[in-house]
Amino acid sequence: MKFSDLVAQLSPQANSLTTNRDLNPEITGIMAVHEAVANTLSYIEGDKFASMVAKTTASALILPLDKNLQTQAQERGIAWMGTPQPRLMFAQAINLFYQPFHPSVSVHPAAVIDSSAVIGENVYLGAGVVIYPGVKIGDDVSIYPNVVVYPEATIGDRTILHANCTIHERSQIGNDCVIHSGAVIGAEGFGFVPTGEGWYKMQQSGCTVLEDGVEIGCNSTIDRPAVGETRIGKNTKLDNLVHIGHNCQIGQNCALAAQVGLAGGVKIGNRVILAGQVGVANQAKIGDGAIASAQTGIHHDIKAGEAVSGSPSVSNKLYLKVSAIYKRLPEMYQTFKQIKRNLGSQ
Amino acid sequence: MKFSDLVAQLSPQANSLTTNRDLNPEITGIMAVHEAVANTLSYIEGDKFASMVAKTTASALILPLDKNLQTQAQERGIAWMGTPQPRLMFAQAINLFYQPFHPSVSVHPAAVIDSSAVIGENVYLGAGVVIYPGVKIGDDVSIYPNVVVYPEATIGDRTILHANCTIHERSQIGNDCVIHSGAVIGAEGFGFVPTGEGWYKMQQSGCTVLEDGVEIGCNSTIDRPAVGETRIGKNTKLDNLVHIGHNCQIGQNCALAAQVGLAGGVKIGNRVILAGQVGVANQAKIGDGAIASAQTGIHHDIKAGEAVSGSPSVSNKLYLKVSAIYKRLPEMYQTFKQIKRNLGSQ
Amino acid sequence: MKFSDLVAQLSPQANSLTTNRDLNPEITGIMAVHEAVANTLSYIEGDKFASMVAKTTASALILPLDKNLQTQAQERGIAWMGTPQPRLMFAQAINLFYQPFHPSVSVHPAAVIDSSAVIGENVYLGAGVVIYPGVKIGDDVSIYPNVVVYPEATIGDRTILHANCTIHERSQIGNDCVIHSGAVIGAEGFGFVPTGEGWYKMQQSGCTVLEDGVEIGCNSTIDRPAVGETRIGKNTKLDNLVHIGHNCQIGQNCALAAQVGLAGGVKIGNRVILAGQVGVANQAKIGDGAIASAQTGIHHDIKAGEAVSGSPSVSNKLYLKVSAIYKRLPEMYQTFKQIKRNLGSQ
Repeated sequence: MKFSDLVAQLSPQANSLTTNRDLNPEITGIMAVHEAVANTLSYIEGDKFASMVAKTTASALILPLDKNLQTQAQERGIAWMGTPQPRLMFAQAINLFYQPFHPSVSVHPAAVIDSSAVIGENVYLGAGVVIYPGVKIGDDVSIYPNVVVYPEATIGDRTILHANCTIHERSQIGNDCVIHSGAVIGAEGFGFVPTGEGWYKMQQSGCTVLEDGVEIGCNSTIDRPAVGETRIGKNTKLDNLVHIGHNCQIGQNCALAAQVGLAGGVKIGNRVILAGQVGVANQAKIGDGAIASAQTGIHHDIKAGEAVSGSPSVSNKLYLKVSAIYKRLPEMYQTFKQIKRNLGSQ
Repeated sequence: MKFSDLVAQLSPQANSLTTNRDLNPEITGIMAVHEAVANTLSYIEGDKFASMVAKTTASALILPLDKNLQTQAQERGIAWMGTPQPRLMFAQAINLFYQPFHPSVSVHPAAVIDSSAVIGENVYLGAGVVIYPGVKIGDDVSIYPNVVVYPEATIGDRTILHANCTIHERSQIGNDCVIHSGAVIGAEGFGFVPTGEGWYKMQQSGCTVLEDGVEIGCNSTIDRPAVGETRIGKNTKLDNLVHIGHNCQIGQNCALAAQVGLAGGVKIGNRVILAGQVGVANQAKIGDGAIASAQTGIHHDIKAGEAVSGSPSVSNKLYLKVSAIYKRLPEMYQTFKQIKRNLGSQ
Repeated sequence: MKFSDLVAQLSPQANSLTTNRDLNPEITGIMAVHEAVANTLSYIEGDKFASMVAKTTASALILPLDKNLQTQAQERGIAWMGTPQPRLMFAQAINLFYQPFHPSVSVHPAAVIDSSAVIGENVYLGAGVVIYPGVKIGDDVSIYPNVVVYPEATIGDRTILHANCTIHERSQIGNDCVIHSGAVIGAEGFGFVPTGEGWYKMQQSGCTVLEDGVEIGCNSTIDRPAVGETRIGKNTKLDNLVHIGHNCQIGQNCALAAQVGLAGGVKIGNRVILAGQVGVANQAKIGDGAIASAQTGIHHDIKAGEAVSGSPSVSNKLYLKVSAIYKRLPEMYQTFKQIKRNLGSQ
């Protein structure tokens, strides 16, 4: 499509949009700025990529509201749009060129559905899907092949369960959720009581609840508790290989990156971001809007808005200082030994 | 049921049990102490939760042998039982109210079972289960849908294999084991020999052995070795997303929390506890009863009974000291610089 | 077989091979040196195991080119072969005794194959395999039960997909690859743009490419990007539970151990080794031949050939020094406090 058509389609979604009307290339696809070729659209966001305006061979760019970058693009003959959130507009632009695969409404004859299950309208149930007794499935749901749904689970409208994932008994999955391949929702929490004769298994009679709009990444595991609920709040997104222990309560609009692990009973507020491989200990509480950088080990409560790093976690500000000094420990140690000798000889 | 009936049913299982006979509420369910409502039973264990006796709305509590807490409960009109292990009795109480889902004995017509496989009595084999040649399955085994069992594996009596897990060739799984959804037992160890032409694959001719009473969490992976065995001892419990490398030997009654990873040839004694995200390097040995806290990185042998923390691991005692000082490094560094200047000017 | 026959069969594969011709035991199997019994072959490599020559009950050993060890073996009546790479020859010897399970060519009637899929010759498609439209599968491919292949994916010749793994849309898997059980290839990258109204989902229109000879461990996840490719180079090997984020580019002949996690857009050269639980931050670049030890946290670019450790990563050399001093921080802190008092009193 013409660049001008693209601008016309994106304008209604943008907070504010400026553009150069004099260049109007044909745009046939979307690419990353360092790989873009002629007739593709790309975007620039952040200082790290700003220098790419001078190098990219994209025919069109989504730029921040930065006159300097816009002038550079103009001088290089690159059509541009300016917006406060280039990455967001890039995501919107992808939707104009890409239609994700979605299976047709159908129930495969090789799906095994208990007669007591309640199945909504316009659903897709792939081959090898197994639905146990008492399950309720909403409208417009897509369940890919070889997914297993244990008894009494409920799946909300428009939710997608990708291939080979498993939904355990009594799980409640909301509307518009996506459970990616291999994820396991609502399996037994790790509940063993130590006794003189070894571990005594505590039955996990609770359930796991995912509110509307939750996404769970591939091969992630969200356990259910002995009593009560494990709950993940509305629109919270989890990446791959994340572990959520029994009784955790996660708020809304959080993002947990790959390989994050929460022990039991962790409470997380809204809009919290945990980067990759973060671990959180039993019963820790994390306030709204807190951020933990990669590999952080959280053992204590974190206040709302705090940014933490390190294991055990400290404020990110302190962590950066300490990390810089850390490298100088050998030098400090030499001085320390010299001082000790001096002290000794006084 | 009446509280007095509950006490009567739990008494035979308890080491010692005291109670107040004057209060006898109807108990209809079990809840966590901070969420409990009228007519539910809950429990208190540990200092952290002791203050909940004054706040909970539970009608009955399992309490430790603590006169003060018992008096508090009494004064608030809460029926109570006293026992040295409240959490254990809570687990026993759950069993009186909750019957975990267990599928009926049956072999689904959509299970694919090789004619050479030996299948015990009273088994459940769900739809989509695939049993390869030479497999032996004991009595009272439950294999949920879409589990795949490779050739020559053996599955002991009463063992449960949850949906979508995979048991590889020659694996020996004992009696009373539980393999949770998505776990992979006995796949090829990561054996590649570096050569001038790249990696040379070492065939993994060994097998994985799980002794009786082992539980393996969701999506955990227990590899088999090139020669010999990978072995997990009796009643050892593994949480989700745990990796056990080829040739590891784990003793009895251990507990490995989520996302723990053992490299190849690690030897672990009995009753060892590894908290979440702990990593153990090749060939390291860990003695009986040792404990490693979350995210510990173990590169050397750990003695029996030791408690370790940090990466690289040190004794927990030293770790706590060092972690406290860690935060003061910027302050120390300022003083260090001042001293260096002083030394230089002498 | 006789030891002499073993030597004859291994000789053509060895760079150089010496042996003692006077001992010629019958060899019936292969075992690890510390477990070996009579009539088995084992190997010794590295200082750690050298002392086992004096203890092992193996009848034959593959030894390094070390006269001393060879003499010791000779004196104990152990037949031996000497080679510069004992472990490599041990791997070659396993091939003479062990034939890995390989299913017969067949398409199971319970496999569900879209009529538009192109299937090569001599393939194995197990029960419960689901092949979506537009998929291309090469010759001599083995796809184990309950694997799901989404639309338009391609699978190269001789590639093996183990049970319960999932290959997502447009993935390109080369020849001679092995995808282990439960792995998920080409699922949606974790792409969410923060907005005032919560996360905006960025569609992942790109694909994942695995070049020839790649192995992906059990339950590992390799995401596809919003645009462009996630690519893993020829003969690179990944262990279990590894996460590769969208747009990562990994070179040839790398090895990534279990539970490694790469965030988005990471670039890794050739022959890079990442030990267990290493994490790499967004957009970091790692040069050819670099090595990171277990649990390293990489936030910045790493030069070719560098060895790094720690979180945040520093050179391995510095890390070893710092780790040694780390344990002395309490002692340093005592001195520091004394000095501070002295400075204050001056």
